[in-house]
Amino acid sequence: MTEVRGNNLDPWYSHYAQRTAGLSASEVRALFAVASRPEVVSLAGGMPYVSALPEELVAGAAERAVRKHGPVALQYGSGQGTPRLREQILEVMALEGIRASADDVVVTTGSQHALELMSKLFLDPGDVVIAEGPSYVTALTVFRSFQAEVAHTAMDEHGMVPQALRDTIARLREEGRSIKLLYTIPSFQNPMGVTMPWERRMEVLEIARENGILVLEDNPYGLLYFDQAPPQAMRSIEEAGVVYLGTFSKTLAPGLRVGWAVAPHAIREKLVLANEAAVLSPSSFAQTLISEYLSTADWRGQIDTFRGVYRERRDAMLGALAEHLPGLSWTVPAGGFYVWLRLPAGLDAKAMLPRAVKELVAYTPGTAFYADGGGRDAMRLSFCYPEPDFIREGIRRLANVVSGELTLLGEFTKTGPLTLPAPAPDGVLPPSIG
Amino acid sequence: MTEVRGNNLDPWYSHYAQRTAGLSASEVRALFAVASRPEVVSLAGGMPYVSALPEELVAGAAERAVRKHGPVALQYGSGQGTPRLREQILEVMALEGIRASADDVVVTTGSQHALELMSKLFLDPGDVVIAEGPSYVTALTVFRSFQAEVAHTAMDEHGMVPQALRDTIARLREEGRSIKLLYTIPSFQNPMGVTMPWERRMEVLEIARENGILVLEDNPYGLLYFDQAPPQAMRSIEEAGVVYLGTFSKTLAPGLRVGWAVAPHAIREKLVLANEAAVLSPSSFAQTLISEYLSTADWRGQIDTFRGVYRERRDAMLGALAEHLPGLSWTVPAGGFYVWLRLPAGLDAKAMLPRAVKELVAYTPGTAFYADGGGRDAMRLSFCYPEPDFIREGIRRLANVVSGELTLLGEFTKTGPLTLPAPAPDGVLPPSIG
Repeated sequence: MTEVRGNNLDPWYSHYAQRTAGLSASEVRALFAVASRPEVVSLAGGMPYVSALPEELVAGAAERAVRKHGPVALQYGSGQGTPRLREQILEVMALEGIRASADDVVVTTGSQHALELMSKLFLDPGDVVIAEGPSYVTALTVFRSFQAEVAHTAMDEHGMVPQALRDTIARLREEGRSIKLLYTIPSFQNPMGVTMPWERRMEVLEIARENGILVLEDNPYGLLYFDQAPPQAMRSIEEAGVVYLGTFSKTLAPGLRVGWAVAPHAIREKLVLANEAAVLSPSSFAQTLISEYLSTADWRGQIDTFRGVYRERRDAMLGALAEHLPGLSWTVPAGGFYVWLRLPAGLDAKAMLPRAVKELVAYTPGTAFYADGGGRDAMRLSFCYPEPDFIREGIRRLANVVSGELTLLGEFTKTGPLTLPAPAPDGVLPPSIG
Repeated sequence: MTEVRGNNLDPWYSHYAQRTAGLSASEVRALFAVASRPEVVSLAGGMPYVSALPEELVAGAAERAVRKHGPVALQYGSGQGTPRLREQILEVMALEGIRASADDVVVTTGSQHALELMSKLFLDPGDVVIAEGPSYVTALTVFRSFQAEVAHTAMDEHGMVPQALRDTIARLREEGRSIKLLYTIPSFQNPMGVTMPWERRMEVLEIARENGILVLEDNPYGLLYFDQAPPQAMRSIEEAGVVYLGTFSKTLAPGLRVGWAVAPHAIREKLVLANEAAVLSPSSFAQTLISEYLSTADWRGQIDTFRGVYRERRDAMLGALAEHLPGLSWTVPAGGFYVWLRLPAGLDAKAMLPRAVKELVAYTPGTAFYADGGGRDAMRLSFCYPEPDFIREGIRRLANVVSGELTLLGEFTKTGPLTLPAPAPDGVLPPSIG
C-alpha cells in the first residue's frame, strides 16, 4: 500500500484527522488505470460481467421506476431502505438458508458502505479486526481508515482454519488487545476462491461465541456457485452474533450501488442512524429499479445465466493454468470470481507486475490482500470479466512472464536458469498457506 | 436530540466505538413518521417537489442509461465520479460564478456524503467545527458523530455576523481548542432562509484566511432564488481555503443521491480515497442518468420552473403568517425552502409540537438546529413540499395552536390569558437572533 499523506505543498497538512494518515491508495486502484487499456488482458479487477443482463428488462425497470413510482423513487426515503425492497431481500437470502424479518435489514450504498458503517460504529483506534489472510482489499482499507489493526488468521483450501483462529485470539488476548470483529467471506472467498464447509462454519461460530466476538459475514458470491450450492450462510444458524452483508452488485449490477446488512436489533438501529448521517437515505431510485426488476424478471434464472458464464470462464482459466503453468499451484474455486495462484520460490508478484503489464497481462499481487506485508509470493487472478479466449491468452502471457522472471532470477543468483517446479498432485494448494 | 446507546438488552453494548455514543436520532427524523400521515399538513420536512419534473425526459434518461450506456452505467466506476458528469457539473457551478477544473470535482452520494467524508478526513475527537446558529441538522449530526464539538456563531437577517465570528474564534483560541472547519450555508440558509451579502462573504473569507480555518461552503439552494440571483458563491473568489458542496437533490431529484465536492488538490485526492473506502465508487447509473438528463432536457428552464413553484409557496406562507400570526416575527427568504419563525416569549416550540400534531400540522422545532440546546423559542417552517392551499391551512392551524398555548400559559402563570404581541414593523426578525 502507498501511504498518501499531506505534505508541505498542502496548506491543510496539519489539519487532517489522525485517521487520515491511515487512508491509503490500494494497489488494485493503481492497477485499474493501467489495466483498462484495451490491449491488456486484465485478470486484476473484480468487475461482474453485466453485459449478460437482460437489457430489455433492466431498461423497463428503470423506466417504470420513473413513470410508475416517480414521486417516491425520485424523493428522499427511509434511512433503512424501502419496505418493498427489504421484503424482496428476504426472498434472496432465503436461497442461502437465512430467515429474517424485513425489520432486521438495512439497505446500504453497496455492501461496501455497510462495511464502512459497521467500522464507524465499532472501531476505536487500536482495536483489532481479525480477518482471513488474505482478505478483501477494500475491507482492510476501511478497517484501517478507522485506525483499527487487522490481524490475519491462517487459511487452507477449506477457508479459515479453526485452530489457527483460536491461536490468533489467544495471542491477541495475551497482548491485551481489544478484538471487535471477526471478518469472514465464507463462500468463494475474495481473493482465494475457497469455501468453508458447514462443520467449519459452526466451529468458527462457536469460537466467536466463546470469545464474545461479533462475526461480520460478507457474502457477495454465495449464489454464484458452479455445481452445487455452498453450505448455508453462517447467519442461517446464528442471529445474535452475526452481522450479515449481502449485495446486488454480483447478481444484478454494481453500478446501482445497492447492498444490505442484516443485524441484531440494537446494532440494526445504530446502522440506520449511521446511514442517515452518512447519506440521509440510500437511493430511492436504485431501490425502486431493483424492486421492479425483481418483480418482473426471472431473477433466479438470471443468476443461473451468470453461473454458466462464470463457470465457463473458471474452466478456461483452470485449463490454461494446467497447460501453461503446470508446475505451480492454485486454488480451484467452486464459485465466485477468483483463483489464487502461488508463484515459485524466489518470485515476487508485486515486483513482477510491471513486466507483466509490459507483456499485456495484469493481475493483483497478493500483497494487496494482506495488511501485514504478506502475500508477495502469490497473486489473485480474476476470471469474472474477460471472455474465455482472453483468459487463455492472459494466462499464456503470464506464463511467459513467469518463465522470464525465473530466467532472470537464475542469472541473478548465478545458479543458471531455474525452471518451473514439477506439478503438484492435483494443482491444488496444500493446507495452511495463509 | 435523543441519545441512542446500547443498553443491557444489547449483548454488544460494550463493543461499540466511543463515537457511537454521539450518534443520535434527530427530532426531524422522529417527526417524519408522524408527519407523513396524509391528514397532517407537514411544514417539517425539506423534500423538494419532484412532481414538477418532466416525467418524459427523466424516464427517457433512465432508459437510455441502460440501453445506450449499460456496460458502463451498470458497472463499477471511478471513485471520483464519471468525467462526463464532472464536466457538466462545471456548467452548473458556472451559474454561481465558480470556475474550476473537472479534476477538482468529486462526485458523492448526495452532498450529505461529502459532509461525512470531509468530517472523516478532518475531525479528531474534541476538534471544533464553527457553524451558524442555527444550522443544518444533519451536518451537526455528522460533525458530532466524529466526536467533534459544534460551536455556533450568531446570525442576523444577513447571515453569519462577522464580528460574532471573530469573537467566537477568539474565545475558542483562548480555550485552546482546535478549530478545524467553518461550516456555512451562505444562500437561503437552512433553517433560517437568510442570505449573506457579497461584502459579508468576503469578510468571512478574510477572517477564515487570517485564522487558518478551512471553509466548508454548502450550497444546495443557491440556484433556487425567487427574484434575483444571490451573490456568487464564496468558492468563486477563493480556491485554496474553501471546500464547496453542491447537489442535484434540489435542482433534479434527491432519490438519485448525487452531489459533489470541489476541493483544493490535496484535499480532493484524499476525498477520492475516502469515497472509495466508503462506497468503492458513486453510482455509475445515477451519474449516467443525470448526464443524459442534462444533455437532453432544458435543465436551466426546469430550474426556472422550480423557482416559480417555490416562489408561489413562499408567498402563500408569508401571506398566511401575516394574516394569522401578525404579532410574531419571521424571516423573509428570497429563495430556498425555509422560513424561520420566532414564537412569543414563554412558548417552547418543542414542547408545543405534540399539540400541533394533534391539530394536524407539523414543523421542526428550533432546537433541532442547535447543538447546544438553543432554539426553543423558534421553529423552521418548510414551504417546499405542500401545495399553497395546504400551506395556508397549515399556518391557520399553527396559529390556533399558538393561541391555545398562550391561553394555557396565561392560566398557568395566573395572570390571565396572554394575547399575541403587536406586529413587528415588517414581520422580519431583528438583527442578532442567533
